[in-house]
Amino acid sequence: MNFMFRKFLPSSRAIIYELKRNQPNFLQKSHFSKNPESNHVKSMEGLVKCSANYVPLSPISFLERSAIAYGNRVSLIYGSLKFTWRQTLDRCLKLASSLTQIGISRGDVVATLSPNVPAMYELHFGVPMAGAILCTLNTRHDSAMVSILLKHSEAKIIFVDYQFLDVALGAFDLLSKANCTLPRLVLISDSENSSKTINISTTSDLDYEKLLELGDTEFDFRRPNDEFDPISINYTSGTTSSPKGVVFSHRGSYLNSLATVMLHGMGAMPVYLWTVPMFHCNGWCLTWGVAAQGGTNVCLRNVTPKGIYDSIALHKVTHMGAAPTVLNMIVNAPGNDRSALPSKVNIMTGGSAPPAGIIFKMEELGFNVSHLYGLTETYGPATICAWQPEWDSLPPDERARKKSRQGVQHIGVEVDIKNPVTLESVPDDGKTMGEVMFRGNTVMNGYFKDLKATGEALSGGWFRSGDLAVKHSDGFIEVKDRSKDIVISGGENISTIEVESVLFSHPSIFEAAVVGRPDNHWGETPCAFVKLKDGCSANAEEIIQFCKDRLPRYMAPKTIVFTDLPKTSTGKTQKYILREKAKSMGSLS
Amino acid sequence: MNFMFRKFLPSSRAIIYELKRNQPNFLQKSHFSKNPESNHVKSMEGLVKCSANYVPLSPISFLERSAIAYGNRVSLIYGSLKFTWRQTLDRCLKLASSLTQIGISRGDVVATLSPNVPAMYELHFGVPMAGAILCTLNTRHDSAMVSILLKHSEAKIIFVDYQFLDVALGAFDLLSKANCTLPRLVLISDSENSSKTINISTTSDLDYEKLLELGDTEFDFRRPNDEFDPISINYTSGTTSSPKGVVFSHRGSYLNSLATVMLHGMGAMPVYLWTVPMFHCNGWCLTWGVAAQGGTNVCLRNVTPKGIYDSIALHKVTHMGAAPTVLNMIVNAPGNDRSALPSKVNIMTGGSAPPAGIIFKMEELGFNVSHLYGLTETYGPATICAWQPEWDSLPPDERARKKSRQGVQHIGVEVDIKNPVTLESVPDDGKTMGEVMFRGNTVMNGYFKDLKATGEALSGGWFRSGDLAVKHSDGFIEVKDRSKDIVISGGENISTIEVESVLFSHPSIFEAAVVGRPDNHWGETPCAFVKLKDGCSANAEEIIQFCKDRLPRYMAPKTIVFTDLPKTSTGKTQKYILREKAKSMGSLS
Repeated sequence: MNFMFRKFLPSSRAIIYELKRNQPNFLQKSHFSKNPESNHVKSMEGLVKCSANYVPLSPISFLERSAIAYGNRVSLIYGSLKFTWRQTLDRCLKLASSLTQIGISRGDVVATLSPNVPAMYELHFGVPMAGAILCTLNTRHDSAMVSILLKHSEAKIIFVDYQFLDVALGAFDLLSKANCTLPRLVLISDSENSSKTINISTTSDLDYEKLLELGDTEFDFRRPNDEFDPISINYTSGTTSSPKGVVFSHRGSYLNSLATVMLHGMGAMPVYLWTVPMFHCNGWCLTWGVAAQGGTNVCLRNVTPKGIYDSIALHKVTHMGAAPTVLNMIVNAPGNDRSALPSKVNIMTGGSAPPAGIIFKMEELGFNVSHLYGLTETYGPATICAWQPEWDSLPPDERARKKSRQGVQHIGVEVDIKNPVTLESVPDDGKTMGEVMFRGNTVMNGYFKDLKATGEALSGGWFRSGDLAVKHSDGFIEVKDRSKDIVISGGENISTIEVESVLFSHPSIFEAAVVGRPDNHWGETPCAFVKLKDGCSANAEEIIQFCKDRLPRYMAPKTIVFTDLPKTSTGKTQKYILREKAKSMGSLS
Repeated sequence: MNFMFRKFLPSSRAIIYELKRNQPNFLQKSHFSKNPESNHVKSMEGLVKCSANYVPLSPISFLERSAIAYGNRVSLIYGSLKFTWRQTLDRCLKLASSLTQIGISRGDVVATLSPNVPAMYELHFGVPMAGAILCTLNTRHDSAMVSILLKHSEAKIIFVDYQFLDVALGAFDLLSKANCTLPRLVLISDSENSSKTINISTTSDLDYEKLLELGDTEFDFRRPNDEFDPISINYTSGTTSSPKGVVFSHRGSYLNSLATVMLHGMGAMPVYLWTVPMFHCNGWCLTWGVAAQGGTNVCLRNVTPKGIYDSIALHKVTHMGAAPTVLNMIVNAPGNDRSALPSKVNIMTGGSAPPAGIIFKMEELGFNVSHLYGLTETYGPATICAWQPEWDSLPPDERARKKSRQGVQHIGVEVDIKNPVTLESVPDDGKTMGEVMFRGNTVMNGYFKDLKATGEALSGGWFRSGDLAVKHSDGFIEVKDRSKDIVISGGENISTIEVESVLFSHPSIFEAAVVGRPDNHWGETPCAFVKLKDGCSANAEEIIQFCKDRLPRYMAPKTIVFTDLPKTSTGKTQKYILREKAKSMGSLS
């Protein structure tokens, strides 16, 4: 009877019919063809990786998913410009397609010199989708440094935001003079700032939007062959030594994106405000992470207190990240620049230890501060000060002190404080210092073209951070200092972070940094570089006394210098510059 | 000067001193010793996996982390019994240590026959930590089935809850008679139900708590050699064919645990009520997932409406999972059994499509229902009906209908609806049916000792689910039926799920299941098995008319049978039993 009907059925019905009556009847060539009959062997033999059950991990998959799950939701806002996740996927496919058309091959390096504009976000997907490696250069670099990094990375293309075109062209000049091959330059003009758009014909053969037009949304993009394949190179910002190119893998990026999203409590469709530069550890992995939850990326060209407050109010920001310098900027913003928060904003901070006082003020303003810690070598966030509900009832100072600790390991990585010689764990006494070490899937592949430095960093089975810390009895770690920053005075270790924390609590001080000043008698003495708040005054004696009242005497600075602090683009104080200054002062005694 | 001091310094100071002065000075043998000087080679050569940057993924790492991050928080509540995460880690280490002492080797299978009691939770970590594979047997199985599965799995040990001891002993008898080796039996007595504890000496040489006492919390537990190594075997509950042992890997379990936690919106420290049996897909991967967020597991021996409502109120449950049958139980609970929800409870449902009416009633009660879909072969949850905020303003019926769709792929897996013959994707017209197929890291390794079935399931690069679905224009999928369940009447496909959904909306019907009844003229006609609500009445004609008013005529059941529905332990109706019944009725025409 059914056969009669079948003739008239549309094809899908016929198929279902077949499926039902003759299951399993549609098997293609088995991938277990070698030994199809041995289905009673003991053990797991034959249950192998195949394309149905194994796919190299890659954060690109987050974009593919959000284009389906959140296709019509806003993926990105920049001024009056908005995209949906479907549009972002299409634009990234076009970008990847165009890159391959202009000759980008698997494993090529593609550099950027750009603030947090839409193109910068799209490059985080489009470049790996062309099989290439993204190398995001710090926009505070000068032409000399950019030329060094372009040469080292062997970048085939550099995407340059119009604001940094002069820097890039200066770097090109230097490369030309040194007879180096020049990368191709693609200019990111700015639809939001069109009056500033320059005539590209004089400077570049390609414009970002024009490049996209070449592309094809049907492009079958290049997936990593192996999940350990590199996705990006992040040159370290160089607070201490010369820049090194930290290589991230698709696997590590996937895992740390998810871990950061989870530990930052980002549920479905967060609204994320970008103040952390995307060129810094790929925005602490949240360039990819926000895509994993179908969130909205709110981009700002310039990070100002007013820009932050306005964006929070206008776009109902739920999450953001910021270095302690930016927190400082937020709490010290003039009244005119402020708007009330529409609701609680969860803010991750890291990069350096946030002074307890600043955390406290942030929370008064309605921010919920999470303290993360990590390094470029750990894909950004690697520990979190996991908040315990019983701490809610502590006095504000103690609460902020708890929160200024770096905390416990992230999902996906292991952290320990170890004796750097024996690799033994230090006791959890809150006193014994050791080096912070990491191991796990969110530790870098290594330093690009630098096997020596890679070996030094990863030898012994742990990544050696160079940071010094103690472990408290509750297992939480507290970073005391960079090993290069610690001041040793009369044989006593002085954590400059602790001294700075006291200085930050002084009512007239805007920010402060402590380094060692050479001393004939003590070896070193602590020397504080201090910037006062606008309209405030204080003298050196008074500040030194303020510290003596709150610290062991030997820890109080012996020298106070009033000055602006030199910063990296990620808001870290460049202590090596201050150390040079302190050195040039000579011995105090 | 400093050297004088150094003599008197405690060792950690001396170390920091060294670290500072002579960095890098403490390098151990480099793992790049083969070619340490080639630090200017092009490409990523030499940046390889090493123990610092690559660790096999395993959900066991979640437990290790929570023991640090949430050491003093409650990990598990069962009646008056409570453990902290530190205690849970210690108990799991002891369990793993004891298992190795009594002879468990890497790759051995350890079975369980237990409801959701603390031991069952601990076995999810302790067994893999001994390098063994966890095989959780369904507690609704009879002795015959248990004996078959013990033989097939070659389990070395079975952990048996006292409530199921008779079933296990019955299985042992059968194995003895067949001259099979018996596994060792470890009895889980119940401290919460001590009056019921039986004398173990008569039945078993080992008691769970006594076994733990043998163990050592300092045990250096066995980590997987490869992340693709098996962590568990889940025998499918057998709605259709004979049970197959689905093999989960450490990798897949890690990834689906995190994905489920994220997509279910579980932030830090959720309180999770266990109504989903842990033996079912390892509790949809949340046995491990709750550990990833340092949550509290609320365990229930028996799932009753009163037990659910009381636990929610007492422990301030934030999240739970439940098959639609359990939702039905919750919405139909007698008034005396109910308590008000202290706050919104997020409930995941899956296992079969929840009728729209039940979703609607759940939401009225204060639950927020997420609809997930997946199979044992996909580690449980593999799609989610990702809620779109604009749906909030739809009329309740439409809202519930949106929510009854299976949705979009989970993070970590790809889903598509394909023509099972050509493997082409069906159009997103909401009409063309195809087979639901998955590929990705959360698809099983294969079926234990069944290469033939594995090849059939995974051939062509996709896992073939056997479920029939359509794809809507927004990319969301909607499962229409199991391919074996669909009724073909006069050449028309009738989705039994659609007919059941109408039956569920009938005010007197408690639950219903539709199968095909053989028919000489039509091939098959729909036959509904119906259970009425207590105290309600309805007759067949009336119900058939109710369906005709709401469905195309050919879809309305022609036969109504009033009866209890046979269920698997996971709440799925055993349609093969109903099909047998319908078959025995013979043709209607």
